[in-house]
Amino acid sequence: MAHMYFQLPVLEKFVGDAFQAFGFTKDESAIITDVLLTADMYGIESHGMQRLSRYDNGLKSGLIKLDANPEVVFETPISAVIEGHDGMGQLIGNHYGIAGYYALMAVKEGLVGLSTTNSEAIMVPTFASKAMLGSNPLAVAVPADPYPFFFDASTTVVTRGKLEMYRKAEKELPDGWALNKYGNPSTDAEDVLKNIVAKAGGGIMPLGGSTEKLGSHKGYGYGMLVELLSSIASMGITSNHTHMNGKGGTCHGFIALDPAIFGDPDALKEHFSTFLQELRDAPKAEGAERIYTHGEKEALAVERVKENGVPVDVKTVIEMKQMADHLGMDFTSYFGDIDLDTSTFSSIYS
Amino acid sequence: MAHMYFQLPVLEKFVGDAFQAFGFTKDESAIITDVLLTADMYGIESHGMQRLSRYDNGLKSGLIKLDANPEVVFETPISAVIEGHDGMGQLIGNHYGIAGYYALMAVKEGLVGLSTTNSEAIMVPTFASKAMLGSNPLAVAVPADPYPFFFDASTTVVTRGKLEMYRKAEKELPDGWALNKYGNPSTDAEDVLKNIVAKAGGGIMPLGGSTEKLGSHKGYGYGMLVELLSSIASMGITSNHTHMNGKGGTCHGFIALDPAIFGDPDALKEHFSTFLQELRDAPKAEGAERIYTHGEKEALAVERVKENGVPVDVKTVIEMKQMADHLGMDFTSYFGDIDLDTSTFSSIYS
Repeated sequence: MAHMYFQLPVLEKFVGDAFQAFGFTKDESAIITDVLLTADMYGIESHGMQRLSRYDNGLKSGLIKLDANPEVVFETPISAVIEGHDGMGQLIGNHYGIAGYYALMAVKEGLVGLSTTNSEAIMVPTFASKAMLGSNPLAVAVPADPYPFFFDASTTVVTRGKLEMYRKAEKELPDGWALNKYGNPSTDAEDVLKNIVAKAGGGIMPLGGSTEKLGSHKGYGYGMLVELLSSIASMGITSNHTHMNGKGGTCHGFIALDPAIFGDPDALKEHFSTFLQELRDAPKAEGAERIYTHGEKEALAVERVKENGVPVDVKTVIEMKQMADHLGMDFTSYFGDIDLDTSTFSSIYS
Repeated sequence: MAHMYFQLPVLEKFVGDAFQAFGFTKDESAIITDVLLTADMYGIESHGMQRLSRYDNGLKSGLIKLDANPEVVFETPISAVIEGHDGMGQLIGNHYGIAGYYALMAVKEGLVGLSTTNSEAIMVPTFASKAMLGSNPLAVAVPADPYPFFFDASTTVVTRGKLEMYRKAEKELPDGWALNKYGNPSTDAEDVLKNIVAKAGGGIMPLGGSTEKLGSHKGYGYGMLVELLSSIASMGITSNHTHMNGKGGTCHGFIALDPAIFGDPDALKEHFSTFLQELRDAPKAEGAERIYTHGEKEALAVERVKENGVPVDVKTVIEMKQMADHLGMDFTSYFGDIDLDTSTFSSIYS
C-alpha cells in the first residue's frame, strides 16, 4: 500500500470540518476526530481515517443516528448504564473506534483504564461452526514511564480488518485464522467475509485457534469476559444478535480504577515501570531485534508521525477527496494540489 | 494413568487429618482440604491431591511457613493489600491451588468473582528467549443457570503441569507449546522443564504462540494484566524474581464485583444464562459432539464424582499411603485394605 504523509493539524482541520458537514456540532466533531486520528498516529490505520466513509454510510443508512441523546438508565455512585440510542460511537453508542482510546482517557487522569466492546459476530466458539461472539477487544492502559502500558487487542486471532486486507490483496489467509461455514479451517478470505456478513456460518478463530490443543477455549473465554463487561452488564444486545434488521446495537464497557486503592500511586507506577524495563532488557530470541512492551510500538509510531507526518493510504486520500467534493468542501484548501490518479478507483458515493 | 475411585467424605477426612498432622489447625486444614478436593472434583487433577507431597515438601524446606500470620499492610473501604509472609497459599500466601476456587467464593455470595496469581517464571514474552512471567492464570466466575460461568486458565498456551505429564510419559511435546533456551521452538519436555527450574532460558509460549502471526503478543498481554493485578497492585514480587534464594513470594489478586451496580442481579443473571444457552445450542463444527460453555465441564465432572466417587491416580494413592505411614496415620482405617503394588515406586520421603 502506497502512503502519503500529512501534518496532523491539517488532517484535524479536514476531518473536523467533514464531521461538521455531516451535521455534528463543532465539539462533537472534535471528539470524533481525536479518536480517529489517535488510531492513525498509533499506526492502527484500520481504525483511523480509512473509516470515514463507513461513518458517512452509517449515518445515511440510519444505522448511526445523528441526533441521538445518550440516556442514563441506571446508576450508582460508582457506576452507570447508558443507553446510547444508536448515536455516534465516539460520542456514545455504535462502533466507537479503537477501544484503547477510552482506556487512555483514564491514564490521563492518573488512573488505570479498561475498555471493551462487542461487535457483529465474527468469533466462532470452540467446537462451533457459527460466529457467535464479536472481535470483542479488551483494552487496558496503565500509568508507566516512559510511556503508559497500552494493551488493545481483539480476543480473536486476528481482526476482521486483517481478512479484508488479504481479500484486497487477493492473498490466501495464513493457517490458523479462519473457519468456513462448516467449522473447518479456511484460507479463503472472500468466502469467510461473505459468510460473516450473511451470517451463514464460519468466521474467525478465537485466540488460541479452533482446538483446545493450543488454547482455543481460552480465547473464547476472554471473548466471554468482554461480552460480560459490554452486553451483559448493560442488559444490551449480545454479539450474535447485533447488526440485524438495520440496527447495530453493539455495547461498550468502561472501567476506571484508582491505583490509590492499593497504595502510593507513584510507588506503584515506579514498580510497574521497573518490571516493564526488565522485560525490554530480557534476553532476546535468536533473530529477534527487540522485545516490546505493550504501548511501545504506539509510542514509536507517534515519534514517526512527529517527524514525517501521518501516513495515509493513497486509497483513503482519494476517498477523502471524493467525500470533500460530495460535501462541498474545497479539498485543495486543506491539502494543496495533490496529484491523485483516480482512474482505477470507483466512487464511495454510488 | 490408572485411577481408583474414592468417596468424597473419605478423602475429606484423610486430607484434613493429614494437614492437621502437618501442624495446621482443624479449621485451617478444612479450608486447604476444600480447595484441593474442589480441584479433583472439577477434573483438574493437577491441582488436587496429587500436590499433597509438594505442600509437605514446601513446609519442610521452609518455602511455606506453618505459623505465618497474614498482615493487612494497606486498606481502603473497598480494598486491601495483604502481606502473606509465605504462609500456606489456601490460607493466604504461596501456591494457592486453583485460582477459580476463589472466584467461585464470590459467586456463592451472588457476586462476580475474579482471581489471579503470578508464579515462578515460565512464560517467554514475544521475541524473548527467557521466561519472565508466570503461568499467570486469570479466573472469572459469574452467577448463571444452570451452573455458574467458570473460566480458569493460564495465560500460557498450556501449564507447566502439562509438560510434566509429557515428560512422565516420555512423549514429544506438540508443536506450539514450548521454547528452548535460545528462544526457538522445542518439543523436548525434559529440557524445557530443566531450563525453567535452572532459570537458564526458554519456557512455555504465551497463548497465541511465539510469533505475532497467531497473536503471541495477546497472550503476553493477558499475562501482563495478571501480573498487574497480582504483583504490581500489591507492590509484590514479579514472576521473574519469585522462587529465588529459598523464597517463593508469589502474589495473588482477588476482586468481587456486585452485579447490582449495573442493574437487577436476577435480570442480569437471566440475560447471561440465555446467552450461554444460545452458545451451547449454536451449530456445531463437523465432527464436534457438543459446544461447551465455561464451567460446564466442571459441572459434568461433579456429576461423575457423585456417581462414581473421586478419581485418584494410583501413583497419588501410593503417595498418600507413604504420607500416612510417615505421619503415623492408619491408612487402612480410611481406605480399607487396598492392594497397591508399590514395587516400582520410590518413596516421596528420602
